[in-house]
Amino acid sequence: MPKTQPARGMRDFLPADVRRREYVIGVIKEVYERYGFEPLETPAVENIETLLGKYGEEGNQLIFKILKRGVHESSGEADLALRYDLTVPLARVVAEYRDKLPKFFKRYQIQPVWRADRPARGRFREFYQCDVDILGSRSMLVEAEICAAASEALTALGFADFKIRINHRKHLTAILDAVQINEEDQTRALVVLDKLDKIGIEGVRTEFLELGFPAWVSTELFDFFARVEQGSESDNLTWNGHSLCEMRKFVEGHPEGEVALTELTRILDLVSAGGAAGKVVLAPNLARGLSYYTGAIMEITVPGLAGSLGGGGRYDNLVGMFLGQDVPACGFSLGLERIIVVMTEREMFPEALVSSPADIMVSIWNEGSVAESISLAQELRSAGFRVDLYPEADKLGKQFKYASARLIPFVAVIGDDERARGEVSIKDMRSGTQRSVKRESLAVTLRELL
Amino acid sequence: MPKTQPARGMRDFLPADVRRREYVIGVIKEVYERYGFEPLETPAVENIETLLGKYGEEGNQLIFKILKRGVHESSGEADLALRYDLTVPLARVVAEYRDKLPKFFKRYQIQPVWRADRPARGRFREFYQCDVDILGSRSMLVEAEICAAASEALTALGFADFKIRINHRKHLTAILDAVQINEEDQTRALVVLDKLDKIGIEGVRTEFLELGFPAWVSTELFDFFARVEQGSESDNLTWNGHSLCEMRKFVEGHPEGEVALTELTRILDLVSAGGAAGKVVLAPNLARGLSYYTGAIMEITVPGLAGSLGGGGRYDNLVGMFLGQDVPACGFSLGLERIIVVMTEREMFPEALVSSPADIMVSIWNEGSVAESISLAQELRSAGFRVDLYPEADKLGKQFKYASARLIPFVAVIGDDERARGEVSIKDMRSGTQRSVKRESLAVTLRELL
Repeated sequence: MPKTQPARGMRDFLPADVRRREYVIGVIKEVYERYGFEPLETPAVENIETLLGKYGEEGNQLIFKILKRGVHESSGEADLALRYDLTVPLARVVAEYRDKLPKFFKRYQIQPVWRADRPARGRFREFYQCDVDILGSRSMLVEAEICAAASEALTALGFADFKIRINHRKHLTAILDAVQINEEDQTRALVVLDKLDKIGIEGVRTEFLELGFPAWVSTELFDFFARVEQGSESDNLTWNGHSLCEMRKFVEGHPEGEVALTELTRILDLVSAGGAAGKVVLAPNLARGLSYYTGAIMEITVPGLAGSLGGGGRYDNLVGMFLGQDVPACGFSLGLERIIVVMTEREMFPEALVSSPADIMVSIWNEGSVAESISLAQELRSAGFRVDLYPEADKLGKQFKYASARLIPFVAVIGDDERARGEVSIKDMRSGTQRSVKRESLAVTLRELL
Repeated sequence: MPKTQPARGMRDFLPADVRRREYVIGVIKEVYERYGFEPLETPAVENIETLLGKYGEEGNQLIFKILKRGVHESSGEADLALRYDLTVPLARVVAEYRDKLPKFFKRYQIQPVWRADRPARGRFREFYQCDVDILGSRSMLVEAEICAAASEALTALGFADFKIRINHRKHLTAILDAVQINEEDQTRALVVLDKLDKIGIEGVRTEFLELGFPAWVSTELFDFFARVEQGSESDNLTWNGHSLCEMRKFVEGHPEGEVALTELTRILDLVSAGGAAGKVVLAPNLARGLSYYTGAIMEITVPGLAGSLGGGGRYDNLVGMFLGQDVPACGFSLGLERIIVVMTEREMFPEALVSSPADIMVSIWNEGSVAESISLAQELRSAGFRVDLYPEADKLGKQFKYASARLIPFVAVIGDDERARGEVSIKDMRSGTQRSVKRESLAVTLRELL
């Protein structure tokens, strides 16, 4: 007998789960549409070359690879792979359909991705990303729009206490230069720094030593981060002013560092006019794992959740890897499962969601009246009601019990008497009361009752 | 440079494609919900043992298999596979969560499946199935409900000329017994018969000879099918009466054949009371390819489309393969891509679907007024409008041209004059007229204009 659990790290979603997921997706979509983003969908399966080399060494390991088929199956080789994120497929799409797409392409995409990660609380091997990206412009307005869209989506779901932490890849280069980590070691240093919230300061210190960086490197860096953190008691705007000042002192005179601070200042300025006003804070220790970022990087955190609700950034060179010509781009990805984890813990779902599967159930009086029940169900469905139909002639008490257990509020009964009088009985499952109504006025009565 | 086309047989969906797909899925979902079906979702990836051996020999070959990961990758072995249909995962789910699910489980599921088939017109390697199934009852009402739900979904999409062809696995057994094909050859005979609409009568005749069946077998069978077909000039009800008569003559006295005809008669009777009334016709030559069917089998055809819009049937033993105990089941699957192919050819999509990405675009007057434009966009979005925001300070004419090309009906402009007066200019992109309104009444004006 085969196992009946879903595969490791994968999940089945029973009706109540699906309705909660659809609610969250619906709210996010509605906000993304209000921001003028258009929907895009790409296949779950990509050619393996499309994905390899885009996510760093660790990423390559976590890609699910698909075996060649037919006579090639025995070669053990893979030619296809499952989508690892929604950004690389987007870059491929923009390269492929450049002429069909508007100069500024604003798309949202809400689809699953697959990563062969070790499953943990809130970490699955199949999970949904809800992405918005704007391609075609280097304007910092793009970062502001992206932050505003993600921020408003979370606000619409009921989140009030999140922060968008922001940093800049060039600022990271500047601070690593400042502590004399040479260029070829910087990628590895960033991978370690990206784990800060998982392994803590001591963990980073240890791994830096293992990479051969002298001890004073960690001391300098964490002293700097601590000085920035001193501003966190103030409101976000004041804190940002304090952080900018500390960041400027640390990377002063570094050309890329200066660019980063100019861009971050501009982004903060524009953000304050839009939907993410007051939500964005500078975070000079933020390092996103993915290797394709080139400018601003962002991450959304919420109290009580290790890790983030989502993240993103600017990646001006990724489309170029497919097109041979750069197209500037910046985007944000919200993680559906993390959002649902927090919303469930905080009981943020609207009560009306835990709904019954139907407005009314039509019961079966006896074997001879099955067709009568079918036609009643059909009438009510045509009137727009959600109607369950008990599938068998069974004891009426059993049918009532079934409707009750399923939280269906009403049950229609057409017994011999009712039929003779052209009537239908409606039983209210909450009060237990029953009334007869003329069949032709059933829809009107039911609409009043619901 | 990696290729930028999607992988073979897979497709990217640009915004207009997604909107059409979502329209069709939305209509189907709405009908399924009215029938009291609840949503279920299962992972794209299943343990490979879950899928192998469920779809016949040909099916096994078409399953996409996923390579083991990490140190096991080099073994060339697969432990996971992509979902091949939605029925086998449903059977697994019912076995796994039996205690959590209602006695009669009515679920719909609209998700992609993957088959390594040779791509052809309307045949893709990733495609969506829209399934409804009812588990837990052997009542023929279930077949009638399933047919009605599928039929109403197509009707709601605007289809009027489809037919639901219906047959019964036990009737197929009876007619193959009648032409003396022994039990062990019947599966292969059905695989050939299932290809009738692709390879034609001569094709079936040839393959039957190759299987070693004497020539008179095909003659007998096709004579029988032709006699049934003679009734097709009449309306569907009369034709069904004629067909039942011919079918009874052909399999008279065969115990399983009698069961099949009794059940088909009952289904036709119940169908006539519900949403598929007048749509169902008997088709004794219908043989569905999948090996798990045990009772009635159905397929929906529409003039001008080779192949079907969907199909289904009863499979009372499949859950038992996971649970060790049978749970009766019957379901129907509509093929999203076939539906879209026909709807596109027949121009059945509502015109309003080919919509613009936004109600209004906010332009940028100059570098200094970017924040002003952001805050105007923010106000309009809060009022519920879909608002695009041009990302850069650019020549106004260029911005207008961009909005026009994207079919955005209005553009908002805040120049220095407008700003001084607390006003906003709105340009109607269709008429070319422009008017100034007070900023605080912009939302009201825009709502009137749209």
